[in-house]
Amino acid sequence: MNALGIHLLIEMQDCSPILLDNIDHVRNAMLTAARESGATILGDKFHKFSPQGVTGVIAIAESHLTVHTWPEYGFAAADVFTCGSNCDPHVAASILIRELGCRKPQITEIKRGISVSPRLHKPAMFAAAKG
Amino acid sequence: MNALGIHLLIEMQDCSPILLDNIDHVRNAMLTAARESGATILGDKFHKFSPQGVTGVIAIAESHLTVHTWPEYGFAAADVFTCGSNCDPHVAASILIRELGCRKPQITEIKRGISVSPRLHKPAMFAAAKG
Repeated sequence: MNALGIHLLIEMQDCSPILLDNIDHVRNAMLTAARESGATILGDKFHKFSPQGVTGVIAIAESHLTVHTWPEYGFAAADVFTCGSNCDPHVAASILIRELGCRKPQITEIKRGISVSPRLHKPAMFAAAKG
Repeated sequence: MNALGIHLLIEMQDCSPILLDNIDHVRNAMLTAARESGATILGDKFHKFSPQGVTGVIAIAESHLTVHTWPEYGFAAADVFTCGSNCDPHVAASILIRELGCRKPQITEIKRGISVSPRLHKPAMFAAAKG
């Protein structure tokens, strides 16, 4: 059954705490991951917490990327949600895992929009969907 | 086992196509959902697609909210990811379901950060985590 999108939930243990607490590094890693996956970036918002941690969201034409870091645990939770065939979320996940120095990643892949009503789910319209 | 965050994946079928294509309405619904859940909003980015559809991301101090709409299918995929005890993601989900006129919602709850290393996962540090 066709899905409208693929959503990767990426649990990243054993990351570099120093990298996880560097907002510029985290933002650059996320933007690079988005671009290299084939996504079109619409906008982003990143924030550095005190005393530690970074949160970031990126809106892409194909859906989104998000990341939240806990340097105190060496942990980050990232999401890559893409639709369409021009964008590969696994490329983005690989880049994030590498750039955040993650030695113990766990990726869960979830199909989104698989239960869309067949009555409304016309192939011709599917081709015109964003992404 | 404690989790760092709760992530709701909300599949919204049978929504109002008119509401799903109205960027102001979708953005207001999302911001209201974030506020009413108890979240602190850090920033947002919303985009209207041509010919149809809206994408939006909101960074909150407690993690994020996102939404992607397909008016042509009456479908929207939303995510509410929160950490900490001051924020209730189910409140946000209920508001989104109501505000987008969704008659067939499906919510999947996923715990994030449950595998964080016990060695690093100190209760005293957990209390100081964001959110």
